[in-house]
Amino acid sequence: MLEQIRTVLSHTTHPGNIGAAARALKVMGLSQLTLVNPKDYPCAEATQRASRATDILADAAVVGSMEEAVADCRLIVGTSARTRTLPSKLITPRELAEKIKHNPSRLPVAILFGTENSGLTNEELQICHYHVCIPTNPEYSSLNIASAVQLVAYEMRLALCEQPLIVEQRQVESDLAISREQFSGLLEHFEKIMLQTGYLVLGQERLLPQRMNRLFNKADLTVSELNILRGFLSSMEKHVKRIEQNH
Amino acid sequence: MLEQIRTVLSHTTHPGNIGAAARALKVMGLSQLTLVNPKDYPCAEATQRASRATDILADAAVVGSMEEAVADCRLIVGTSARTRTLPSKLITPRELAEKIKHNPSRLPVAILFGTENSGLTNEELQICHYHVCIPTNPEYSSLNIASAVQLVAYEMRLALCEQPLIVEQRQVESDLAISREQFSGLLEHFEKIMLQTGYLVLGQERLLPQRMNRLFNKADLTVSELNILRGFLSSMEKHVKRIEQNH
Repeated sequence: MLEQIRTVLSHTTHPGNIGAAARALKVMGLSQLTLVNPKDYPCAEATQRASRATDILADAAVVGSMEEAVADCRLIVGTSARTRTLPSKLITPRELAEKIKHNPSRLPVAILFGTENSGLTNEELQICHYHVCIPTNPEYSSLNIASAVQLVAYEMRLALCEQPLIVEQRQVESDLAISREQFSGLLEHFEKIMLQTGYLVLGQERLLPQRMNRLFNKADLTVSELNILRGFLSSMEKHVKRIEQNH
Repeated sequence: MLEQIRTVLSHTTHPGNIGAAARALKVMGLSQLTLVNPKDYPCAEATQRASRATDILADAAVVGSMEEAVADCRLIVGTSARTRTLPSKLITPRELAEKIKHNPSRLPVAILFGTENSGLTNEELQICHYHVCIPTNPEYSSLNIASAVQLVAYEMRLALCEQPLIVEQRQVESDLAISREQFSGLLEHFEKIMLQTGYLVLGQERLLPQRMNRLFNKADLTVSELNILRGFLSSMEKHVKRIEQNH
């Protein structure tokens, strides 16, 4: 299971932190690392701080967007050293590890870490099913990014490396959680019909797409549920066409 | 209790690790740091890696022997990233935190970290009541010393800090969860339109209403989200009416 946990570093500024993160992952037995638009990479400092974990760096994917980094993931969580104004589904790293342990159908999992200075952007947080808050001193919550990666990877190892407590149940295809790509397709379908019915007017309701994203992210949709919603939306389109043709 | 936990770094080689350890301690609310014969300290690199935790460095004691560092301590533990030949009293960081929590009479506690290359010496290990083994990948157990300090400090904070992990956030009216009555109203609205578009045919798809119920139950809808969905459904009805009238 540890092999299916992807650490995603977004717009990391200091290459030393990327190297230290690679080392932090390997020492806990994790291996998937994806870098979204790193500022200065590859870089000798990254390699040096990685110590002998350079294989993690060599295998790391460097991509141009967060959507690309998480496209095939069924559970996406964003990390933060402090609580944000968005209180939806705030959990601790330990709770996250338990969730993954008891829901292996949500693999692959992406755990997102934002840039050193300001963390994840609101856009990045919005694609997350949960926000993981690492408990820190409220008077000094300046957790180094590689240290944050280390703490989360440690909780993953503790929870996922031993024998599972609960025997895995065989999953049928339609009960699988949907991927981020399927999720984006659903939101686009909703938006298309919302524009058609006039519920959404481009340029006017900027928050509506965000709210739809959050609403359905909370639902943790399965493939069969996705099919219901897509089928419903398609039936609406066909219905409108039929009326137009019959008149 | 966190104030009575002393981190002791013995013969640390790289000053950057001392700075990073100070930051790791402060971010978890620990403050006592003692340095036994550091190789290169004070040093600008230590200050830089400490970020804004320089107060921990300023207050750190620099001593000439381990005996001096732990003289007033009632519980002394040595850390290691791998199991040693000495298996006696081997515990995990989490078990250590529990022990301290349940035996406050053992405070102050000293937690010893050895030199980067070879860890604690046999002499240093012999004064320890317990050996703390941080679980790592057996194929690559090269845990950075500041990362080890970070992991142990994190377990101390989780077990010994009484503050709630996550501060509850104020609820606004539109963030309230919907009532069952509002929930039923939403499902009826969906059903009405599903019948209209032909997606649901009465008597044929008995499972569909159950599935819709489950899907939206998982979403934990708020009042503002309910309003979005009801508004969208109403816009569909109006759109169909408009087309019918225009043709």
